[in-house]
Amino acid sequence: MGRESMIETLSETKSHSGIQGVYRHESKTTGTPMTFSVFVPDHRPTHKLPVLTYLSGLTCDHSNVTEKGEFRAACAQYGIVFVAPDTSPRGAGVADAEGYDIGQGAGFYVDATEPPWSQHFRMRSYIEDELPALIAAHFPVDGARQSIMGHSMGGHGALTIGLRNPGRYRSISALAPIVAPSQVPWGHKALGAYLGDDRDAWRAYDAVALIEDRARVDELLVDQGSADQFLDEQLRPGLLREACERAGIALTLTLQEGYDHSYYFISTFMAEHVAWHAARLNV
Amino acid sequence: MGRESMIETLSETKSHSGIQGVYRHESKTTGTPMTFSVFVPDHRPTHKLPVLTYLSGLTCDHSNVTEKGEFRAACAQYGIVFVAPDTSPRGAGVADAEGYDIGQGAGFYVDATEPPWSQHFRMRSYIEDELPALIAAHFPVDGARQSIMGHSMGGHGALTIGLRNPGRYRSISALAPIVAPSQVPWGHKALGAYLGDDRDAWRAYDAVALIEDRARVDELLVDQGSADQFLDEQLRPGLLREACERAGIALTLTLQEGYDHSYYFISTFMAEHVAWHAARLNV
Repeated sequence: MGRESMIETLSETKSHSGIQGVYRHESKTTGTPMTFSVFVPDHRPTHKLPVLTYLSGLTCDHSNVTEKGEFRAACAQYGIVFVAPDTSPRGAGVADAEGYDIGQGAGFYVDATEPPWSQHFRMRSYIEDELPALIAAHFPVDGARQSIMGHSMGGHGALTIGLRNPGRYRSISALAPIVAPSQVPWGHKALGAYLGDDRDAWRAYDAVALIEDRARVDELLVDQGSADQFLDEQLRPGLLREACERAGIALTLTLQEGYDHSYYFISTFMAEHVAWHAARLNV
Repeated sequence: MGRESMIETLSETKSHSGIQGVYRHESKTTGTPMTFSVFVPDHRPTHKLPVLTYLSGLTCDHSNVTEKGEFRAACAQYGIVFVAPDTSPRGAGVADAEGYDIGQGAGFYVDATEPPWSQHFRMRSYIEDELPALIAAHFPVDGARQSIMGHSMGGHGALTIGLRNPGRYRSISALAPIVAPSQVPWGHKALGAYLGDDRDAWRAYDAVALIEDRARVDELLVDQGSADQFLDEQLRPGLLREACERAGIALTLTLQEGYDHSYYFISTFMAEHVAWHAARLNV
């Protein structure tokens, strides 16, 4: 096994009858160390489990959902491995900028083409290619049974990665996702910086644009809090609803009354999302 | 309502169909501002709910269990209000000391008699008297249906407060509690500092000594991880088992294989503890 596929165990802790681990590896995609967490439920030694990858939102790393996401009870119940990567490369030698919505902690799951970001900010390839291979090499997973979900910027990541890779994920869901970054301030700033001014290049990183450009999946599950402070300006789930209606994609979009953008919202609906994925993974 | 019984709302967030709040008040017991969290499940407007108070361990404040404890799903299911106070008075004018195991964040649920601690460190009276009255004045609770639990130093708090107030709590449980502070290093340091060298004064703050001195409850529930790094030196659950056997107290003590002292352990067994309390509160 080459050095590029080795992982370092930072911690492994028993929880909900399984093992919650935190690991680090030298990513050849980002050219930096990358940290991620994996929950492996209790299972028979020879058994391979399905995998649910969770992509986090702005400012987060692996630890936020790992500590506050309340996913372990459901993943233990259904026998699903839960993978939580970081949201960007990090470190002293990595480009950064003022503001929580660009640079470290704000990778937007793109392969950046503009300097200085293009050197390390390759989160699309990291999540689509390098991380799944690393997980398959080190954990008891069945790579044929994968699903993906995410929150906010991570919901954008889950939707766009899922739409760009039809057939690869059994199911795709999002909590309070950014559905059309090309049409909102967070996306203007991030996609402009990472990809430059040519808006055609943004379309591969915009769920609504991907659907307009004929990317297809069978169904999507999205929950959105009605009291989310970013709802009207940054998230705009109605744009996804319209795009799915036109494209014939079965979107289950629920506006959850009174919920905000925080982990108090995420943890409330996490078990329902895990159960929804489980119904599609355990077949 | 006097100023001493007013509370300030720091945040109220919808979660698991209820409201997770964080509040602050001027405590007349400690002479400081005190912060605490309360989860109120969804309920009929005129309905009064039972209360479960959770006491946290060394270094914690209200936020640790509030974010990582995974209690809300179970409390919502059973209709139980969950109260999480701080572990000590805090602030620039409050005594403190080097070390995580004494001073701010380490009140040990005692009324200190020794200077400089005696001025503010009155967590026994705060938890036994002031906080329950404050909760009753501001939240939809049925004060006749109370239970108490805690972790580590907070498990010590739950056990000693429960044992000193027979009949007041419908049920008492602990996760990895300090059961005999008089016999372990953490307790020697804290009780010696807060109460002085007269070990007779320590006995009111030692669950095993209270049972030896004829404090009685019907039953106790304790879970303890077998991989807890503090098990043999600081926690010593066997001392509680022996004391309960001699006293005829029905202790359900389970050594949970492979679990450590962290919130990964707490969150695993939280729902079972809430369900156990619910069976005793909802009657």
